[in-house]
Amino acid sequence: MPVKIAVLKETRAHERRVAMVPAVADKLVRLGCEIHMQAGAGTASRIPDEAYKKVAIAANPQGLVSDADIVVAVQPPAADVVNAMKEGSILLSFVYAHREPDLVKLMRDKKITCFAMELVPRITRAQAMDALSSQAALSGYYGALLGATNLARILPMMTTAVGSIRPAKVLVMGLGVAGLQAIATARRLGAMVEGYDVRPETKEQAESLGAKFVDTGVDARGEGGYARELTAEEKEKVAAVVTKHIQQADIVITTAAIPGRPSPKLISKAQVEGMKNGAVIVDMAGEGGGNCEYSKPGETVQVGQVTILAPLNIPSALAEHASELYAKNQYNLIELFVKDGAIRIDWTDEVLAKTVLTHGGEIKNEAARKAVEGA
Amino acid sequence: MPVKIAVLKETRAHERRVAMVPAVADKLVRLGCEIHMQAGAGTASRIPDEAYKKVAIAANPQGLVSDADIVVAVQPPAADVVNAMKEGSILLSFVYAHREPDLVKLMRDKKITCFAMELVPRITRAQAMDALSSQAALSGYYGALLGATNLARILPMMTTAVGSIRPAKVLVMGLGVAGLQAIATARRLGAMVEGYDVRPETKEQAESLGAKFVDTGVDARGEGGYARELTAEEKEKVAAVVTKHIQQADIVITTAAIPGRPSPKLISKAQVEGMKNGAVIVDMAGEGGGNCEYSKPGETVQVGQVTILAPLNIPSALAEHASELYAKNQYNLIELFVKDGAIRIDWTDEVLAKTVLTHGGEIKNEAARKAVEGA
Repeated sequence: MPVKIAVLKETRAHERRVAMVPAVADKLVRLGCEIHMQAGAGTASRIPDEAYKKVAIAANPQGLVSDADIVVAVQPPAADVVNAMKEGSILLSFVYAHREPDLVKLMRDKKITCFAMELVPRITRAQAMDALSSQAALSGYYGALLGATNLARILPMMTTAVGSIRPAKVLVMGLGVAGLQAIATARRLGAMVEGYDVRPETKEQAESLGAKFVDTGVDARGEGGYARELTAEEKEKVAAVVTKHIQQADIVITTAAIPGRPSPKLISKAQVEGMKNGAVIVDMAGEGGGNCEYSKPGETVQVGQVTILAPLNIPSALAEHASELYAKNQYNLIELFVKDGAIRIDWTDEVLAKTVLTHGGEIKNEAARKAVEGA
Repeated sequence: MPVKIAVLKETRAHERRVAMVPAVADKLVRLGCEIHMQAGAGTASRIPDEAYKKVAIAANPQGLVSDADIVVAVQPPAADVVNAMKEGSILLSFVYAHREPDLVKLMRDKKITCFAMELVPRITRAQAMDALSSQAALSGYYGALLGATNLARILPMMTTAVGSIRPAKVLVMGLGVAGLQAIATARRLGAMVEGYDVRPETKEQAESLGAKFVDTGVDARGEGGYARELTAEEKEKVAAVVTKHIQQADIVITTAAIPGRPSPKLISKAQVEGMKNGAVIVDMAGEGGGNCEYSKPGETVQVGQVTILAPLNIPSALAEHASELYAKNQYNLIELFVKDGAIRIDWTDEVLAKTVLTHGGEIKNEAARKAVEGA
């Protein structure tokens, strides 16, 4: 009996990705799986049904999930999908338990084994399963493009018969995976790029990509590598330096998202009001409410001559590549527990133990359990 | 008496540029001009009224034009603007006489001296006045960005924990100023770029920007440097090669615009239907009806899994830089006939003689005269 995997068309707003791509399907078949997919599931990612040679396409999604040993998805599925799943079957998707308490309880009660992609530990061995990183890399690239297309200026230096245009200034705030890709892309386009992050260890990475690191003159390093609390005077000094750089920029890209918590406000209303005419803010933390006080998630707002974008689900704009990387991340996770055409979960495996959200009637992740069931 | 220059807010659809920028205003004042501008004329270009330090801002545009010795504009003005102008006064703007026969007759009858920006001769001395080139350069950059943001894939190679993404393939058809900038921009973004043009002399330029030139194996060079008529067999051979390259591309950017004539169709419906899933065509010749048989100027159409954009007035998307370069182009023309605070047109100057459309009650440009008055 092969392991049956089901893939549904994503149904959430803004979601164009799909959890299965043809190349990954081929590999799963070699692993002893049989894949059933709802017709048109890849269409929004520009992957037609015909491209899935090794996948059984089901025009009618009824029964797809109830027969499956594993259900793969990008976004948390609707309750009726979980209700249709077999007891003891496996779900792989993003969940974000604190936003989905009812769904998590349902999975617990239905004894679903749910691996939540956002819980993949950030250890070296799990890098190939880290969907947060793969999607963030694509987002960073696209964030820089959004800045460029919304700016009424060009980014590179251009020499013309009537003189030179100077390169635009781009400031990237928050230098995780997305921020670093935004730097790389803005540099490719010829902009002068600055990077800023409260973590001083990001300086070298920003510089290696050709950006200048904004030096606030305040060292926030505390014990054990964590940032220490700054004094009031230090905070003021940092704010003054950062404000200057925000207000000199043509494009500011912010990427400070904290999973499960509201996004920190990196740009105040007052800072926006002092920005250059025509400047553009690309706020990549829209899902958490945004990094700018003026941001409206999912909308583009105009404050004087400053344009503020706070797009939702940026990876979906690059759905084909985003789906490809996401499906590969999931494949690497599945490979840990599908052996010789059978499912055998080794709970001593750190990756599986840390990624599991619900299993055997329990919420296994401590933070999620507290958020859903109370302390 | 200083030379009075009037600038109105542009009123045509899609037009965000303005014919005057602060830096050029300063230079015109030094040349002995006095500039009067309608309030808010620069707003769509992200230039607020306050930025024009040397310009008199008129809240009420009435009387602005009737007092002016020179009116500068981007798009051809409305008839009532021309009607309000003084006999013998000067207009500088794009006109495209064949599209504006009534306006041209009105300018003739009102004895307006009109310099049409599209008529600036393409000679070395006039490069600094060549607005077609300056705007095309910006368009080419933006065309490549439009392709990138509408593609569900990234352009550069990216190395991730789950393997490498290969660079996208971009084909640029038509290697004038716009096409070459599109090549440069797609290369910056890390794509593998190919260029194609019927003029073999463009090969070297494309290659110097890092593109591969599509070699059809047919030499179309004829006498005197012009392209010769191809035989049926040769045409077929060219088509087969070009089709292959179109259908391997992720993005095709077409830039074949012929001022005053419908754009040539470079991509047939059949060619589109054989393109890759998710491919994007950026048809930059929308104003002339487009280079692709499926293009709808001003719209984005979806043919199967191929997206076809045919944006109108692309320079307006970069209104601030487009206005800056355009205003500088016009300045260089004005400098030819404003000396010591007075207007003195030297009709033996080749640039002025070739750029003039109407003067002293006559249509001076032969092609325009035929188009407007009949042969």
